[in-house]
Amino acid sequence: MMILLLVIIMDLNLKVNENGNMTIANVDVNEIAMDYGTPLYVIDEERIRDNYKRVFSAFTKYYKKFRVLYACKANTNLAVMRILEEEGSSIDAVSPGEVYISLKAGFDPKRILFTGNNVKDNELEFVDEQGVLINLDSISQLERLSKIVNPENYKISFRVNPMVGAGHHKHCITGGVMSKFGIKEEEAANVYKKAIDLGFKPIGMHAHIGSGILDPEPFKLATNALLDIAGDVASKVDIDFEFLDLGGGLGIPYTPEEKILDINKFAEEITAIFKNKTKEYGLGTPYLYIEPGRYLVGDASVLLTRVNTIKNSYRKFIGVDAGFNTLLRPAMYDSYHHIVVANKVNNEEVEKVDVAGNVCESGDLFARDRMLPKIEEGDLLAILNAGAYSFSMASQYNSRPRPSELLINNGEVEIIRKRESYKDLFNKQMVPKRLEK
Amino acid sequence: MMILLLVIIMDLNLKVNENGNMTIANVDVNEIAMDYGTPLYVIDEERIRDNYKRVFSAFTKYYKKFRVLYACKANTNLAVMRILEEEGSSIDAVSPGEVYISLKAGFDPKRILFTGNNVKDNELEFVDEQGVLINLDSISQLERLSKIVNPENYKISFRVNPMVGAGHHKHCITGGVMSKFGIKEEEAANVYKKAIDLGFKPIGMHAHIGSGILDPEPFKLATNALLDIAGDVASKVDIDFEFLDLGGGLGIPYTPEEKILDINKFAEEITAIFKNKTKEYGLGTPYLYIEPGRYLVGDASVLLTRVNTIKNSYRKFIGVDAGFNTLLRPAMYDSYHHIVVANKVNNEEVEKVDVAGNVCESGDLFARDRMLPKIEEGDLLAILNAGAYSFSMASQYNSRPRPSELLINNGEVEIIRKRESYKDLFNKQMVPKRLEK
Repeated sequence: MMILLLVIIMDLNLKVNENGNMTIANVDVNEIAMDYGTPLYVIDEERIRDNYKRVFSAFTKYYKKFRVLYACKANTNLAVMRILEEEGSSIDAVSPGEVYISLKAGFDPKRILFTGNNVKDNELEFVDEQGVLINLDSISQLERLSKIVNPENYKISFRVNPMVGAGHHKHCITGGVMSKFGIKEEEAANVYKKAIDLGFKPIGMHAHIGSGILDPEPFKLATNALLDIAGDVASKVDIDFEFLDLGGGLGIPYTPEEKILDINKFAEEITAIFKNKTKEYGLGTPYLYIEPGRYLVGDASVLLTRVNTIKNSYRKFIGVDAGFNTLLRPAMYDSYHHIVVANKVNNEEVEKVDVAGNVCESGDLFARDRMLPKIEEGDLLAILNAGAYSFSMASQYNSRPRPSELLINNGEVEIIRKRESYKDLFNKQMVPKRLEK
Repeated sequence: MMILLLVIIMDLNLKVNENGNMTIANVDVNEIAMDYGTPLYVIDEERIRDNYKRVFSAFTKYYKKFRVLYACKANTNLAVMRILEEEGSSIDAVSPGEVYISLKAGFDPKRILFTGNNVKDNELEFVDEQGVLINLDSISQLERLSKIVNPENYKISFRVNPMVGAGHHKHCITGGVMSKFGIKEEEAANVYKKAIDLGFKPIGMHAHIGSGILDPEPFKLATNALLDIAGDVASKVDIDFEFLDLGGGLGIPYTPEEKILDINKFAEEITAIFKNKTKEYGLGTPYLYIEPGRYLVGDASVLLTRVNTIKNSYRKFIGVDAGFNTLLRPAMYDSYHHIVVANKVNNEEVEKVDVAGNVCESGDLFARDRMLPKIEEGDLLAILNAGAYSFSMASQYNSRPRPSELLINNGEVEIIRKRESYKDLFNKQMVPKRLEK
């Protein structure tokens, strides 16, 4: 277990210094926790850049017309977005707010693809006005868009629902019969035809099968499925696909037992299917898009939280100063997040404990029955893989101001989000005069 | 089903006008949805006042020394807090932020009880400085508080963990062996003794067994358990209990099948146990506290959301403009929220549909297989019982600004929280100079 732990830490660009303290990009996290307080999100810039480069070079080795669309719902911090813009990423935006943020972060509208679900008219109008391509998720959206814009040669694409689904949690299976997303595969050709009849110019097709996928097999199935649907559509209607978008879902290991996705093998296999199928169906050489979110930012961040309470109740609880308001995944999805005692990294794991947050709900636990070194009050815990779906899902529940975020760039520490104050809990509130005391 | 639906609506102070439109406190919700946009929280002031009065009069009929401590984590909107302050409520605050808000809402510090979990030193300091009584949840807190304040005659109380737990979801069972809350019942006497030895003056005892309880039996068990622990403590140490706090957990019916808690019978039974046991153990006549949250505000609010998309996929989806960022309970706890088509209240329920939110996650559903009237795009849905753990758990996930809240007071409509804008998504963010474009 010790060896595994260290392997994980090394892999995440996290290291251990001579005092047994965890460092991120050469910064001792114990020092920044002292300086900036806890709970605290700490993001490693280099790791994000490495993650991007790894996936980009893996795919372009086999297929040049390739784009990474960062699924920014994972983490919309502007500095994170800026880093990925510099790297050359494009954007998968799922809401008008994400389009707005992406533009603010400097992304060219042409590098943004909007894939909304249950989108309303004024949201379609907004996205259209920004010059962002709309990937339609339903026939309803198509019909409504045809009244909002002039459809003549107006470029669109469609999200389809292939009968393949995968994910780390039932909520994260986004393809298949239970899914609210996309156009039924058997209706795809008719919907493209309908769009063309309305004057639209469909140029792409998109599917997304799930989330947190470490096994290439379901993704390969989905790639086959998407290409088959695209082939079927192209055989029935007059269309040149500029892109085929395989969606996201690339996972990262959260537990010590999980294996890293072999991105080179993955890219080789996916591009092989892509090239074979595009050839088989005479689809030319469309762009291949993928939409990683977690894969790019998930392992680039830790959540630092300090132990304030050790409680020997019917179980042993390690009480910390973060809660599910700060990191929802364990409470909502039963997600495993590896926890390292950041000031005792080399200490042996000697006892099984529950790590409990400070929210007044029984489900506010970061871990149950977790083997950890002997912990004392004042110790600092690092909750790993807190870069994706962490701050982005944070709330002010229990009237707790949201934490700060730091960016570390090879030894340099910068604040990229200030900690909220109690006063921020009142933003937007107004008490009617008659109720004032 | 139709009859049940109407019964529920009537009970919630919601009515139907001659056009089949839902009204709240004499206001047609379709009109306010047009005026203020959706998604939109709408709160009925009178319902909150009625809920408070009902529980207060039920208990004081049988026992005069009684206080309601509103568990404000359910809804910390300042206007809601003001209403309950006017009614005479006290406050159960679980975080320093909730203490801060309660003071801002005009509650006298003496009417606030702070019961934190995994509280850190500077939080204890803050609460102490406000003059708010601290209900200690752990021996760790006791020891640390003894170094922060002068313990001599300093008033405190303790939360104990009785071996009774109940709730509507496993996350909501707050007593028993798995719980992170409170002092083990068999250690209670020792802990009170330790506090007294340190110079503290313990004046209360608190327990909380769960959430969403509609059946009085578990609450009666817990009342017995708390009184037995208090009796045991009083037999071993020199203490006069000023109050015994039974905690919260009073439920409201969410489904048409659930029955309303008979609050008069409940109060009669609980006060009978309380009086018998305090007499049996010679505890005098301490105040009886209870801490309802959901019961006071849960059924006083609806979330209005408009249908923008009807999708016939492998299932039929009704797509709306709210998501789990706005109301988390269905996605997180699989909670049932009754849904009414607010512009077709009298229409017959004719089809089974899934009601889907606009968040890009498969789990973002407000209902599966729900029988509803025939719905068209543009229809307005009212998600009932959205007053508790709804806005308070809202996030900006998917970069969606949080919605507005309205207060209705017998025909008068007032904005009590303005809708966030896209710009509010950037509050507190800073991009390092070197990353600027």
